[in-house]
Amino acid sequence: MRIPTFDDVLAAHARIAPHIHRTPVLTSAYLDAATGAGLHFKCENLQKAGAFKARGASNAVFGLDDAAAARGVATHSSGNHGLSLSYAAGRRGIPCTVVMPRTAPQAKKDAVAGYGGRVVECEPSTSSREAVFARVVAETGAEFVHPYNDPRVIAGQATCARELLEQVPGLDAVIAPIGGGGMISGTCLTLSALAPAIRVYAAEPEQADDAARSFRAGRIIADDAPETVADGLKVPLRDLTWHFVRTGVTDILTVPEAAIVEAMKTVWKRMKIVIEPSSAVPLAAILANPGVFRGLRVGVIVTGGNVDLDRLPWIQG
Amino acid sequence: MRIPTFDDVLAAHARIAPHIHRTPVLTSAYLDAATGAGLHFKCENLQKAGAFKARGASNAVFGLDDAAAARGVATHSSGNHGLSLSYAAGRRGIPCTVVMPRTAPQAKKDAVAGYGGRVVECEPSTSSREAVFARVVAETGAEFVHPYNDPRVIAGQATCARELLEQVPGLDAVIAPIGGGGMISGTCLTLSALAPAIRVYAAEPEQADDAARSFRAGRIIADDAPETVADGLKVPLRDLTWHFVRTGVTDILTVPEAAIVEAMKTVWKRMKIVIEPSSAVPLAAILANPGVFRGLRVGVIVTGGNVDLDRLPWIQG
Repeated sequence: MRIPTFDDVLAAHARIAPHIHRTPVLTSAYLDAATGAGLHFKCENLQKAGAFKARGASNAVFGLDDAAAARGVATHSSGNHGLSLSYAAGRRGIPCTVVMPRTAPQAKKDAVAGYGGRVVECEPSTSSREAVFARVVAETGAEFVHPYNDPRVIAGQATCARELLEQVPGLDAVIAPIGGGGMISGTCLTLSALAPAIRVYAAEPEQADDAARSFRAGRIIADDAPETVADGLKVPLRDLTWHFVRTGVTDILTVPEAAIVEAMKTVWKRMKIVIEPSSAVPLAAILANPGVFRGLRVGVIVTGGNVDLDRLPWIQG
Repeated sequence: MRIPTFDDVLAAHARIAPHIHRTPVLTSAYLDAATGAGLHFKCENLQKAGAFKARGASNAVFGLDDAAAARGVATHSSGNHGLSLSYAAGRRGIPCTVVMPRTAPQAKKDAVAGYGGRVVECEPSTSSREAVFARVVAETGAEFVHPYNDPRVIAGQATCARELLEQVPGLDAVIAPIGGGGMISGTCLTLSALAPAIRVYAAEPEQADDAARSFRAGRIIADDAPETVADGLKVPLRDLTWHFVRTGVTDILTVPEAAIVEAMKTVWKRMKIVIEPSSAVPLAAILANPGVFRGLRVGVIVTGGNVDLDRLPWIQG
């Protein structure tokens, strides 16, 4: 396990700057009044490929030497990481293979293909996914880029907090959703180097609260198949992200499903931005814990905006 | 008829700056590739009260002397102007009355009340609206602020194009939706003073194409009750806005309903911002007229983001 350092973050930022957006920070007088806090939303939903994952994926792709790059990259995320890796590989002009269950929504397969990635289907089981992925790597020599448990990916995600600190002086706290822990790890990495007094909160669905339970237990607890509307947050911590969570996080706050959907709709309605359910989890946690955040200047990381617009969680289909 | 000048725009901008957002300009690599143009979206959906109308309303409200201000303001728009006037009056701490048909959606009445405005209901007819409105003005002495045919309002809307020119150098064209013509008039006013070579396109629903027909006929043509998903664009030109349309607009492009809905959904999906149907009309016009815009650097004014999130036009309810 190689733990990335802040020098890795600086190198990552220089490497990926031409390929990512320096995303804007938005505020809402309505939400400030509702929470008694000063909320500064770092809008990674406006990032390339619609999520912060473009940062880590771009750092991994553009950090490869020419020989490795020529063999391409591969992953088995059917979510934002698969999209982002396809985006980054497309920018560099190298192959990208994404292994996805054949049962994944066609829209997700189309989105990967839209960025130039190649979709290889597996059966919807871990054993099939691992077998198919191993065959892809054996055949292509592609570099595996894990969605979060990879120092290159964490150093890339850490560039988001660096921008936030430049954009919003005087923060008291930063809050981000936690699934596998890539964004939280990058946030801890940057803040520990630049502003160690800023508190780092992670927010998690009650129905997928493995990180909160891990945090309290002092060891990684992984759930089998949690169900939550925040589908980006179902994956467990791994050794590298656990290191940052264990050493850098102030607390992990959990919220019920209805509060996530309500917070998501509130952001759409009042801030006029499209955010995915996972991105609403931090606001739901702030609204549910007013005493923790009242009077504070808080950076809220809006992680992504990739939503199926034909199926919104507050509209019965 | 007093035609506002660019000096009025400069005074308006200084007056309203503390009360409005300098909204960001967003770009989309996807839409640039789709259109062959360089599109720069001026995001007034992120404006206070969710629409550019906060500019003109704030200019009217904050331009009143203390005696007039104490009597308050009034209007009869049930759309974004009613909201925005309530917002501006609330900022100044003066009364605002909005006359609305009793049949208007409760959500719109609640939104006005949420900004501190007082809703007075009338029957859903022009005669009732005029009678009720006259009674309100007689009783309160409130200053009538028309949604668009008012030099103070046009000077306020004109501050949007001024910001756009500062944010995006080298524009070849600007395009905005046209309903009553307030935003287009403000745009013509600013560009004629600062950058007269920039072309001004107006975009309009085919089903509410009175401005396009007026433009071709050389005189104002008003339709009775046009039906379009772009509900902000149903109102006719008036003398002041007709002056700017007649003298400053390069062309008016019309688009069918399905193209408006498709463009709206595309912006939500690719740009991750919530825009109302009216705001999608310019992009629909660009997509329908690629030869007009290809190779140009185009400012696209996204006029607002006030949408009923429970009833989206691409989801059958």
